[in-house]
Amino acid sequence: MTKKMFASDNNSGIHPSIFEALLEANDGHAPAYGDDAFTLNVASKFHEHFGEESDVLFVFNGTGANVVGLKAMVRSHQAIICTEGAHINADEGGAAEGFIGGKLLTVPSADGKLTVPQIEQQLAHIGSQHRSQPKAISISQCTELGTVYTIDEIKELTSFAHANGLYVHMDGARISNAAAFLGCTFKEMTTDAGIDMLSFGGTKNGLMIGEALVCLRKEFSSELKYIRKQGMQLGSKMRFISAQFERLLTDNLWLENATQANRMALRLAEGLQKLPGITLMQPVESNAVFASVPVEQIQQLQKFYAFALWNSDKNEIRLVTSFDTTVEDVDLFLATVQKVFV
Amino acid sequence: MTKKMFASDNNSGIHPSIFEALLEANDGHAPAYGDDAFTLNVASKFHEHFGEESDVLFVFNGTGANVVGLKAMVRSHQAIICTEGAHINADEGGAAEGFIGGKLLTVPSADGKLTVPQIEQQLAHIGSQHRSQPKAISISQCTELGTVYTIDEIKELTSFAHANGLYVHMDGARISNAAAFLGCTFKEMTTDAGIDMLSFGGTKNGLMIGEALVCLRKEFSSELKYIRKQGMQLGSKMRFISAQFERLLTDNLWLENATQANRMALRLAEGLQKLPGITLMQPVESNAVFASVPVEQIQQLQKFYAFALWNSDKNEIRLVTSFDTTVEDVDLFLATVQKVFV
Amino acid sequence: MTKKMFASDNNSGIHPSIFEALLEANDGHAPAYGDDAFTLNVASKFHEHFGEESDVLFVFNGTGANVVGLKAMVRSHQAIICTEGAHINADEGGAAEGFIGGKLLTVPSADGKLTVPQIEQQLAHIGSQHRSQPKAISISQCTELGTVYTIDEIKELTSFAHANGLYVHMDGARISNAAAFLGCTFKEMTTDAGIDMLSFGGTKNGLMIGEALVCLRKEFSSELKYIRKQGMQLGSKMRFISAQFERLLTDNLWLENATQANRMALRLAEGLQKLPGITLMQPVESNAVFASVPVEQIQQLQKFYAFALWNSDKNEIRLVTSFDTTVEDVDLFLATVQKVFV
Amino acid sequence: MTKKMFASDNNSGIHPSIFEALLEANDGHAPAYGDDAFTLNVASKFHEHFGEESDVLFVFNGTGANVVGLKAMVRSHQAIICTEGAHINADEGGAAEGFIGGKLLTVPSADGKLTVPQIEQQLAHIGSQHRSQPKAISISQCTELGTVYTIDEIKELTSFAHANGLYVHMDGARISNAAAFLGCTFKEMTTDAGIDMLSFGGTKNGLMIGEALVCLRKEFSSELKYIRKQGMQLGSKMRFISAQFERLLTDNLWLENATQANRMALRLAEGLQKLPGITLMQPVESNAVFASVPVEQIQQLQKFYAFALWNSDKNEIRLVTSFDTTVEDVDLFLATVQKVFV
Repeated sequence: MTKKMFASDNNSGIHPSIFEALLEANDGHAPAYGDDAFTLNVASKFHEHFGEESDVLFVFNGTGANVVGLKAMVRSHQAIICTEGAHINADEGGAAEGFIGGKLLTVPSADGKLTVPQIEQQLAHIGSQHRSQPKAISISQCTELGTVYTIDEIKELTSFAHANGLYVHMDGARISNAAAFLGCTFKEMTTDAGIDMLSFGGTKNGLMIGEALVCLRKEFSSELKYIRKQGMQLGSKMRFISAQFERLLTDNLWLENATQANRMALRLAEGLQKLPGITLMQPVESNAVFASVPVEQIQQLQKFYAFALWNSDKNEIRLVTSFDTTVEDVDLFLATVQKVFV
Repeated sequence: MTKKMFASDNNSGIHPSIFEALLEANDGHAPAYGDDAFTLNVASKFHEHFGEESDVLFVFNGTGANVVGLKAMVRSHQAIICTEGAHINADEGGAAEGFIGGKLLTVPSADGKLTVPQIEQQLAHIGSQHRSQPKAISISQCTELGTVYTIDEIKELTSFAHANGLYVHMDGARISNAAAFLGCTFKEMTTDAGIDMLSFGGTKNGLMIGEALVCLRKEFSSELKYIRKQGMQLGSKMRFISAQFERLLTDNLWLENATQANRMALRLAEGLQKLPGITLMQPVESNAVFASVPVEQIQQLQKFYAFALWNSDKNEIRLVTSFDTTVEDVDLFLATVQKVFV
Repeated sequence: MTKKMFASDNNSGIHPSIFEALLEANDGHAPAYGDDAFTLNVASKFHEHFGEESDVLFVFNGTGANVVGLKAMVRSHQAIICTEGAHINADEGGAAEGFIGGKLLTVPSADGKLTVPQIEQQLAHIGSQHRSQPKAISISQCTELGTVYTIDEIKELTSFAHANGLYVHMDGARISNAAAFLGCTFKEMTTDAGIDMLSFGGTKNGLMIGEALVCLRKEFSSELKYIRKQGMQLGSKMRFISAQFERLLTDNLWLENATQANRMALRLAEGLQKLPGITLMQPVESNAVFASVPVEQIQQLQKFYAFALWNSDKNEIRLVTSFDTTVEDVDLFLATVQKVFV
Repeated sequence: MTKKMFASDNNSGIHPSIFEALLEANDGHAPAYGDDAFTLNVASKFHEHFGEESDVLFVFNGTGANVVGLKAMVRSHQAIICTEGAHINADEGGAAEGFIGGKLLTVPSADGKLTVPQIEQQLAHIGSQHRSQPKAISISQCTELGTVYTIDEIKELTSFAHANGLYVHMDGARISNAAAFLGCTFKEMTTDAGIDMLSFGGTKNGLMIGEALVCLRKEFSSELKYIRKQGMQLGSKMRFISAQFERLLTDNLWLENATQANRMALRLAEGLQKLPGITLMQPVESNAVFASVPVEQIQQLQKFYAFALWNSDKNEIRLVTSFDTTVEDVDLFLATVQKVFV
């Protein structure tokens, strides 16, 4: 067996249960493009987790979910407010600008979270014809720095946004890790907290491929399928995406996977903290550990493990655990770290 | 076991060998976004089939392959010449216009093929600043009407195109069926015939998900990965797409699958032709049968089988076979047809 | 004095009254971007001609008016139905596709007019996620072939369109010529006939630069200024565009100019018809004459005059008159034609 | 006569000489879209000022010039580096994102200038498929803060840019003011300093309408006219734009106008500096004065004059002079300021 990596949770494979679901779905012929029984049935799973009013569409990846969802809510002369480090701004190759044709208004954030005062500041030019008009905010839960918004923080943002005519998108590529951390349901953190559109991540939590776009505001539902198609996100053999989500949302597999990853991140963080010269840069609230490590140790460690050098100015590295990271994996990593510190 | 469908080849499932390849790929951790061993290795398979100079990138679906590939070759003030029925024009929800931002110049075609005189006519306004400037042609092999360009026909098109400063894209969603029909290699039909960019289809020939964009003109290779990313077509757990293609291109699985589908289409066509009032509308050169059927029979048949009513004015239906369509499937369908004709 | 041309009405200069208006507007400083008194006042002129509910925004040219107006009404996954020869399709360099990001669904037209059955045919795929969804029609008044829709024809189109959820845009680059021909007001032909958005042309009727976008459906008004800005159509010294329109819409200057052009076109047509071998290809209802002329005569005539060879297959030329075309200009041209026929 | 404003130089009217040129151009008919004698002739004026290799295209406004020029140099998956306050980022309503479909990478700037280290920092992700790839920088001369790059500063930027595969665009909406300040020719500051593409401003320096896009790198010339057309920036009665530029570039009218504006800004700044509580926020190097003024005085002054409250946090206002601002205008303004300070 190969060594587990800590570079990203998308280095992991497919959870055995998910694989089984794929196998079961591979039974004869089925209508394409979402008219199959798997896709029709999975809607009720999403109703269970997000309320009866939710609508779900499957897309291929997180970028697709984010951009299609945002495009439904804003027009090209409008703008989306997000943090500088938001995935839609920093890691999606200009997909938002390319497909929506509009502007991202970005604000710096030390902990990955967007705040009400930051949004407020971006509203200064509402009504000026010279400026892209803010129409949505996008927050990530967990954030790209592994931190998690509390439900109250989310509600504060959505209340302010709605009061100011802004819609709220949540990039939930790692939403299961956030829910596991908060000990809440998806619904409490999204539908009930005022989220309008959710990118619900599956790939980073044990799926092979596929993300779900969960629409929580009815007015946007009817056009989404056309936006998805134009966004090149409509899969033909849809049942193989649906079946994975069906399984993920059954018997708390999503929670089990996320909890394991979160626990391993905590274990990793605790182990690292004991070492001299290592400082945690963010609270560990999900499955990522951001730590400042002396530069020589980083270089030595890179011989054994792949991981992201997050911020070279601060000698900050990012370590990410997955649903399949085990105690042994973490301890092996920590042992390696210890070795390079000698 | 459920009854096989004839609505589209994407109603089929995953070929057992491909499924096995997925299972094998699901072994521990692997780098994401194409840095895994599966993706690195599969390049040589494509070299084998398309020549050493070919470059391959995986995307999610046919629309993604077509639009990313075309975007590499044309700018938004330029135009792409294709038939009215071309998938990029008729069935991709405006993805080309949306992502490329340019114009498709379409011409009618009775057999799905584009001809040199049609292209020539579209060049009348070359140099006029009021017009989108033709810069590429896109042909489908097989065409959307199941017909297959001969190698000579392709060469005639590419020669004319290149002589006139146009690049040539091939939408090969069903390229294996075409190669099986022509009894030629992929290379003879693409690289050697002057194709610049190829959408190589997998999903319709036994894969679960994924298409390959094969770049046959070096100047376009370096930018493709950025266009793919902005086009929301970069998958994270790439190995699961690569592994499928690896298997498809090994031991002639692609040919075996396509040949079976083609044969079943021929059997279907032969059976239909024997019935009074049924006329074949296109030569059967791949895995699709286009037939005119009396309207009452169509209606009755729809109770038993799903298929596309292709052209209601002509009572024309489309029937598509798959890699997994069997003699029994065809004969059961034909028996049903006979019943509705009584 | 130089010889008048018949190549296009945009070869003409500026009407002396319009020039005077420019001079008057050039008085000291004025707020930019439309906050000046000229722009604020001209709104009431438009109310006079289009009703109190109309809103007007000035843009730079016809393409700008068409594309900004249409963008307000459709989203990129939607489509606009128009004739193949519509200016937005044939002569705007892909601006609609580039800025709206959506599809034009074009239909052939022998007389430049769009018909209800043609629209109906384009609605066949409403609801299919694979297709751009028709959301607007665009008609030109006068058409690009110089023909003029009757008010009843317009009403038939708008009724059908609205009943089917489509908005109606009118490209009125030569709307004054159409109103002069019909002997009706602008309002009867637009607001009262169900038009939702109008590109109101000025340049071709004696202005130096500038077109007006007249919004006749309140729901689109509020966003237009942002779309105009993003569409690069917001002029800073706006007063110089507004002042021209103020003058054009005062004391029937628009009508006087258009009537003169129309009369000269009729005179031209009558003169041409007397010559052997010349056939009028369209009824002369505005300021354009389409005539088939023997090829040798065309070639000789081109030595003396610039004009468009509209359709070389039919030896069809287009001659356009302007507000400043005189009886002498027409007769000089006819004399030249006669000479080349000897 | 109305009081002169200090809100922006686009509040001014048309210089009498320019108006005369318009009148002269209004002589009979002329070919449209740039085939007229005025447009053909003006090219040599631009050669005179920018070198024989320069190519010029006229567009309608500064946004049009910037966006068309940049679109020629970058593709949608690439990015443009500029300051946060750059006009293309802050004041063009998302036109760059909408028409180019790509990303602006913005950096903060206290004096409006971009620096080499800032550019360098933005190159960190060159080669990463997850990121928009920097391909151009855009600088404004004068900057949006009225400061002026020295020729050496420009050369440092272009050298670094070219060495790193980046093209350089200059937004020269107020380029004449910059040249007047530096006492150099346009060519020394652009062509000879390594600029690849220039938006040459006319409107803010006495023209009615129109900007010139000056292409200084041959490889971009051929496609520009198509990009202009798709960008809705092609005027039909082009001679009226060309004639203005012809006049502006003759007998140093451009310099005379800019010098007057610059001088008046200096006089204004000197007057303001004498008042207690007023601090200049930027060196006065062109025709704009940025000053911090006590908030009560700002409010009182706004009753008499329109001007921009640039930064409310710092009580910073912006005052702009024009070609037609006189000593009397400035002294009247200063007297008013003194009054509100009593």
